[in-house]
Amino acid sequence: MNGSDSKSRILIQLDPDLQPSVFDSVVAVDAGADILLRHAGVTPEQVQNLVHGAIFTRGPEDLHNTAIFIGGSQVSQGEALLNAVVKSFFGPLRVSVMLDPNGSNTTAAAAVRVAAKECQLAGATSLILAGTGPVGRRAARLLAREGSAVRVGSRSVERAASVCQKIGQQLAGSTLSPHATETEEQTSAALDGVQVVIAAGAAGVRLLSADLLRASTGLQVAIDLNAVPPAGIDSIEVVDRAVGRHGISCYGAIGVGGIKMKIHKAALRRLFDDNQLVLDAEEIYSLASDMGL
Amino acid sequence: MNGSDSKSRILIQLDPDLQPSVFDSVVAVDAGADILLRHAGVTPEQVQNLVHGAIFTRGPEDLHNTAIFIGGSQVSQGEALLNAVVKSFFGPLRVSVMLDPNGSNTTAAAAVRVAAKECQLAGATSLILAGTGPVGRRAARLLAREGSAVRVGSRSVERAASVCQKIGQQLAGSTLSPHATETEEQTSAALDGVQVVIAAGAAGVRLLSADLLRASTGLQVAIDLNAVPPAGIDSIEVVDRAVGRHGISCYGAIGVGGIKMKIHKAALRRLFDDNQLVLDAEEIYSLASDMGL
Amino acid sequence: MNGSDSKSRILIQLDPDLQPSVFDSVVAVDAGADILLRHAGVTPEQVQNLVHGAIFTRGPEDLHNTAIFIGGSQVSQGEALLNAVVKSFFGPLRVSVMLDPNGSNTTAAAAVRVAAKECQLAGATSLILAGTGPVGRRAARLLAREGSAVRVGSRSVERAASVCQKIGQQLAGSTLSPHATETEEQTSAALDGVQVVIAAGAAGVRLLSADLLRASTGLQVAIDLNAVPPAGIDSIEVVDRAVGRHGISCYGAIGVGGIKMKIHKAALRRLFDDNQLVLDAEEIYSLASDMGL
Repeated sequence: MNGSDSKSRILIQLDPDLQPSVFDSVVAVDAGADILLRHAGVTPEQVQNLVHGAIFTRGPEDLHNTAIFIGGSQVSQGEALLNAVVKSFFGPLRVSVMLDPNGSNTTAAAAVRVAAKECQLAGATSLILAGTGPVGRRAARLLAREGSAVRVGSRSVERAASVCQKIGQQLAGSTLSPHATETEEQTSAALDGVQVVIAAGAAGVRLLSADLLRASTGLQVAIDLNAVPPAGIDSIEVVDRAVGRHGISCYGAIGVGGIKMKIHKAALRRLFDDNQLVLDAEEIYSLASDMGL
Repeated sequence: MNGSDSKSRILIQLDPDLQPSVFDSVVAVDAGADILLRHAGVTPEQVQNLVHGAIFTRGPEDLHNTAIFIGGSQVSQGEALLNAVVKSFFGPLRVSVMLDPNGSNTTAAAAVRVAAKECQLAGATSLILAGTGPVGRRAARLLAREGSAVRVGSRSVERAASVCQKIGQQLAGSTLSPHATETEEQTSAALDGVQVVIAAGAAGVRLLSADLLRASTGLQVAIDLNAVPPAGIDSIEVVDRAVGRHGISCYGAIGVGGIKMKIHKAALRRLFDDNQLVLDAEEIYSLASDMGL
Repeated sequence: MNGSDSKSRILIQLDPDLQPSVFDSVVAVDAGADILLRHAGVTPEQVQNLVHGAIFTRGPEDLHNTAIFIGGSQVSQGEALLNAVVKSFFGPLRVSVMLDPNGSNTTAAAAVRVAAKECQLAGATSLILAGTGPVGRRAARLLAREGSAVRVGSRSVERAASVCQKIGQQLAGSTLSPHATETEEQTSAALDGVQVVIAAGAAGVRLLSADLLRASTGLQVAIDLNAVPPAGIDSIEVVDRAVGRHGISCYGAIGVGGIKMKIHKAALRRLFDDNQLVLDAEEIYSLASDMGL
C-alpha cells in the first residue's frame, strides 16, 4: 500500500431500509465522497464484517479517507447500527462515522442553530412541541446544552417526563420540565414565558394554533419542522426564513432546510479529516456552531 | 449548495429485477454518468422516496445533473416504475428520466431508424411480426408516427387488434390493421404489398420462411431482431447489416445492435442536458432521428 | 462506441453473501478500479445475465477495461460462481475474472511465497496443518507445483487422502501424502523431516504446540495463518514477520498480511491488462512470483 493508491474518499453508507437512501447518497457525492459503498437492509449483526472491511484494508495513515454514514428512515435502527459500528473498532483501527437517520441530527442541529441566531439561548426558556420524537429529543438536548431551560411538550406527559429524565442524567445542571400539550389550554400554559418554540411533530399534525402564536408576547422565534401541510404551527409557511409574524421571527421546514443541508455537507466533509470522529447530534451541532453556520 | 460542488452526473438506476442490470450500468458509465446509484428489486411503492431523494438534494439549477434510468428485464414492471416516478415529481422539481427495460425502446427505435434509411416510410406499408410484444408494439407506434400504414401480425388476431386500437387512439390519422400470422398462408397474405418487415418475436421462434422472403417482391427491407438461432426470418444472419438477399436489404440483431447502442448512449447523454425530459419510445426515436442516427 | 468513451475500469463484484464485502471493494478501489458494480446474494443462475452485460456492451478492444471479481465469505459458493462465469463467455467475448472468496487464494499464495523466500521449495518437504480447508488445499497445490513433497495434515486422514488424490490427479509427478494430525504424537510424526509448516486452521484452533515447534530440528519456516487467539501454532505472534524462534523463521497472520495485500492489488491491476485471464490460485501465485513479491 503506497500513499498514492489510497487517496479516494470512500463513504460506506449503512441503511436499514430495503432501498438505500438516494437523498443520503446525493448529499454525500456533493460533499466530496469519491466512492459510495451503499448497503441496504443492514442489521446490527452484519455490521462487524462491514466495519472490519473498512479498518483492515487501508493503512492507519490512510484510514481518514474511509468513513461510515448511517442513514435510512428509522432513527432507532440507525442508533442500533451506530452502537454496532463503534463496538467493531479495534483500538486505533477505526474510521469516522456520522449518524443522521431521517435527517434527525442535522435537522435538530439546524433548528437550534437558527434559534441561537435569533435569541440568546443561555438563560432563555424553550418549548419543544412533539418533543419526545427523534428530532424533538435531539433539539431538547442541544438547547439544554446551550443553557436554555427546556420544556418538553407531548400529548403524554409521562413520555415527556421520561425524555427530561434521560437528558437530565446526561447533562448535569440542566433544567428540563415535561408538559402536556394536547389541548389548547395546556399548550397555552406551556408557552407562557417562552422565547423559543420548535414544532417537531409528524407530518400533517397541527401542534400550535395561530391564536396562541399571536398571543405569545414573549416569543422571539418559532420554528416549524413539518414540511407537509397543514403546518405544525398555524400561519407559518414552509418557506418562511426569518419572516416576522406577530413580532415573532418565523421559520418553516424549507426555510431551515438550507442551513440543514450546509450542516449535513460540512459534517460529511469533516469525516474525512480524521479517522476518530463519531458525529452524533452534539458533535454535528458543535461543528455547525464552530463554522458559524 | 454552491454550483461547484454538485457537478457530478448522478444516474439513479431503477431495476425491478433481483440483480441490477450490468448491461445498463456499463452503458451508463460509457455515456458519461459519473456516479451510479443502482437499485434492484424496486417496486412502485418504493419509488416516491427514491425520487424525493433526487429532487430535494440539489438546487433547481443543478437538477439536470441528476437523472433516472429505468431498466431491467420486464417491460411492464418498468412501465409501472415510470408512472410512479412521474407522479413523484413536484412541479418544476423533477429530473429527467429514461425508460428502456430489456432494451425495448432503443431496439424499436433502432429498427425503425434502419427502416427509415432504406425506405421512405411515409406512404409505405410495414408489417411487424410478433407485433404485440413490447418491442413490436413500440415499433408499430413509431412506424405509424412516421406515416407508414402498419400491419400488426400475431398468432392471435384479437391481441393484434387490441394493439392497433390502442395505437390508433394515441395517433389520430394513423392506419393500422391486425393480421393473423400463424400459418404460412396467413403470413404470405400479410406480406402482400409490404415494403418493410420487422420480426420482433421471442428468442428462437421462426416467424418468416426463406420461401416467403424470396417471394416478397415489393419488400425493400427486412429486419430480424432475434439474436438467438434459429433466426426469426429464415436466411437472415444475426450480423447482417444492409446485406442484400433476394433484392431485399437485410438486417440481423447484431447488425441493428450498433445503432441501438449509439441511440442508447445518446439518450443517456441527453438526460443530463435538462431536468424535464421523459424519454420513452417516441422521444428516443426523435432524438436518434435528429442526430442523424 | 468510440475508444475514448470506454476507458473507465469497471469491476463487477460478485458476492454470494447478503451484504457485498467492504474489504473486497476498498482493495479494488485502491488497486485502481474506477467504478464498482457490486452484487450481493448472487446465485449461479443469475450469473449469465450479469456476464452478458459485461461482454455485450463494450467493443472487443475495450473489454480489458471491464473485469469480474468473485469474493464473499464462502469459498465453495465462490467457486460455483466462477464456473458459471466462465460458462457464460462467448468465445473471444470475455472479460478477465479473479477468484478470491474469503481471501483464500491471496492468502495461500502469500503463505507459499513467504515459504519460498525462506527455503528452497523444490526438494523440500512441507506440512500443511488443517490442510483440507480452502486455504490449506490451495497452499498444498501451490507447494506441490513448486516441487515440494507435501504432507496434508487433518484430524481425518480420509479427508486428507482425498485432497492428496485430487491434487495428484491435477499435478503429474507430485508427491503428496495424507497424515492424521489430531494427537500430539501424530503431529510429531507428521513434522519429522519437514522444512516448511503452514497452519491453515479455523480461528482459535491450536494445531501445533510450542513443545513440538521447539523440538522440530529441521524446520526452517513456520507460518500461522490464524489471526484470532489462541494462535494455531503456539508461541507464534500474529504480527511475526521472519521472527526467529528456536531457530525457525516464524510468520503470523498479520506478518503475512502485508504481502497478501500486495498480491491482491497486483492481481486486481493485472485484470485490466487483458480480457482473457482467469486468476485462480495458481495464476495469482505465478503473478506474485513474477513480480518478486
